[in-house]
Amino acid sequence: MAHALPDIAFFHQLADAAAQQTLPRFRSAQELHVGSKPREGFRFDPVTDADREAERVIRQIITEHYPEHSILGEEFGATGSGPLQWVLDPVDGTRPFLCGLPVWGTLIGLYEHGRARMGMMSQPFTQERFWADGNAAWWRSPCGEQRLTSRTGISLSQAILHTTSPEPIPRFPAIRFTELAERVLMTRYGGECYAIAMVAAGHIDICVEYGLQPYDIAALVPLIEQAGGAITTLDGGRPEQGGDIVATGCPALHQTVLDCLNG
Amino acid sequence: MAHALPDIAFFHQLADAAAQQTLPRFRSAQELHVGSKPREGFRFDPVTDADREAERVIRQIITEHYPEHSILGEEFGATGSGPLQWVLDPVDGTRPFLCGLPVWGTLIGLYEHGRARMGMMSQPFTQERFWADGNAAWWRSPCGEQRLTSRTGISLSQAILHTTSPEPIPRFPAIRFTELAERVLMTRYGGECYAIAMVAAGHIDICVEYGLQPYDIAALVPLIEQAGGAITTLDGGRPEQGGDIVATGCPALHQTVLDCLNG
Repeated sequence: MAHALPDIAFFHQLADAAAQQTLPRFRSAQELHVGSKPREGFRFDPVTDADREAERVIRQIITEHYPEHSILGEEFGATGSGPLQWVLDPVDGTRPFLCGLPVWGTLIGLYEHGRARMGMMSQPFTQERFWADGNAAWWRSPCGEQRLTSRTGISLSQAILHTTSPEPIPRFPAIRFTELAERVLMTRYGGECYAIAMVAAGHIDICVEYGLQPYDIAALVPLIEQAGGAITTLDGGRPEQGGDIVATGCPALHQTVLDCLNG
Repeated sequence: MAHALPDIAFFHQLADAAAQQTLPRFRSAQELHVGSKPREGFRFDPVTDADREAERVIRQIITEHYPEHSILGEEFGATGSGPLQWVLDPVDGTRPFLCGLPVWGTLIGLYEHGRARMGMMSQPFTQERFWADGNAAWWRSPCGEQRLTSRTGISLSQAILHTTSPEPIPRFPAIRFTELAERVLMTRYGGECYAIAMVAAGHIDICVEYGLQPYDIAALVPLIEQAGGAITTLDGGRPEQGGDIVATGCPALHQTVLDCLNG
């Protein structure tokens, strides 16, 4: 059974409300209370008022408009049980948020029976939104709005590779990241969700991220797919439940990348 | 003998002219011709039209206004021999520029008898400027202009550490980066000159960069110092000639960081 999906305007409404909670706290030590969540493998997993308050307002608006929808969020867990599920990361990239670097984003994804259909990444400081409306991927900035398409027809030796942190690379030697890095044009670090948006926009070719949760990737799955790219787990499966995730702008390159990473 | 230093308005004029060359080429494959320069230790050292054209217009304006000044630029080398020397990196962070990530910057530094006096980092996509006017450090964004001060009174265990790429870390084991990373709160990557601006702004505490050229750091030396931080080579010397560079927001922490890195 198909369900009527919300209009993309509703995603913008959610992103607007989240930005009112995140942006005033960005680069403002007075406004920001930083804590650390316990998480396996991390000494310090930061969480701030910005994360909590942004998720709180997004949940409130969803519940007012779509009380039948279920919600999974990074800060407040899973509620409800409908076939349409919002999957939220109010501040993806809390670490760059703390560093003052504008590569964090508010991630708003929508799953239908567990499959990613629509999603938005909002970066309030640069005033950018990247989204997938169910058919195509789009980018809005202060300069206007345009359709996004990923870069295709590229060979591995011409490709730009990205991963957010190098710290997992030596901890997971079975994932042959170093071997992949030796075969591409160049490797960059530190871009968080913004780097995945740049895969959709055709500027980065491959993103590899380790041990993601569903809310880390939900909004970005349709963005990559509807821009013309491919996004899967390391073994080529659907990415909606997270794990080790590979996104490429060029579907013809995707299997080559997986083969290289799996050795 | 002291020389009259240019007004900071002249730096803004140079940054405006550079932005007209860089910003239209950012995220625009059609406008961008990418080449690679030969450089020891790098397979791919990108250079683009944006780098060359931005340095060309900056040099032209300097030569018109201050024909007696000397210039050192990344793309076109050293010209002239006066005691006042402009030190230019038209696009610091060509790699993130190619990736569509807004953490590159145009760096405009001014040395007097080899000592950094004034400097500006311009990030045209975010419409930000960070500069040192000879006395203090400043930040301008679309939201206004304010004085910058680095974060002081912080212990090593509370500090945020940054380096742009992890790739030099294993190549230079005598620089004990990994040991330093184990003692701080968290380590981030990929920020280029923008991360050093965030040291001046009080959001990052320590930046370590390997093998810099003078033009990579010239504009950022006075920014760090006039914001209240410290910036030296690894052995504690003046940073104007580049090398392995350590910038900290907190002078009381600087020697601790150097001691840790030197082992």
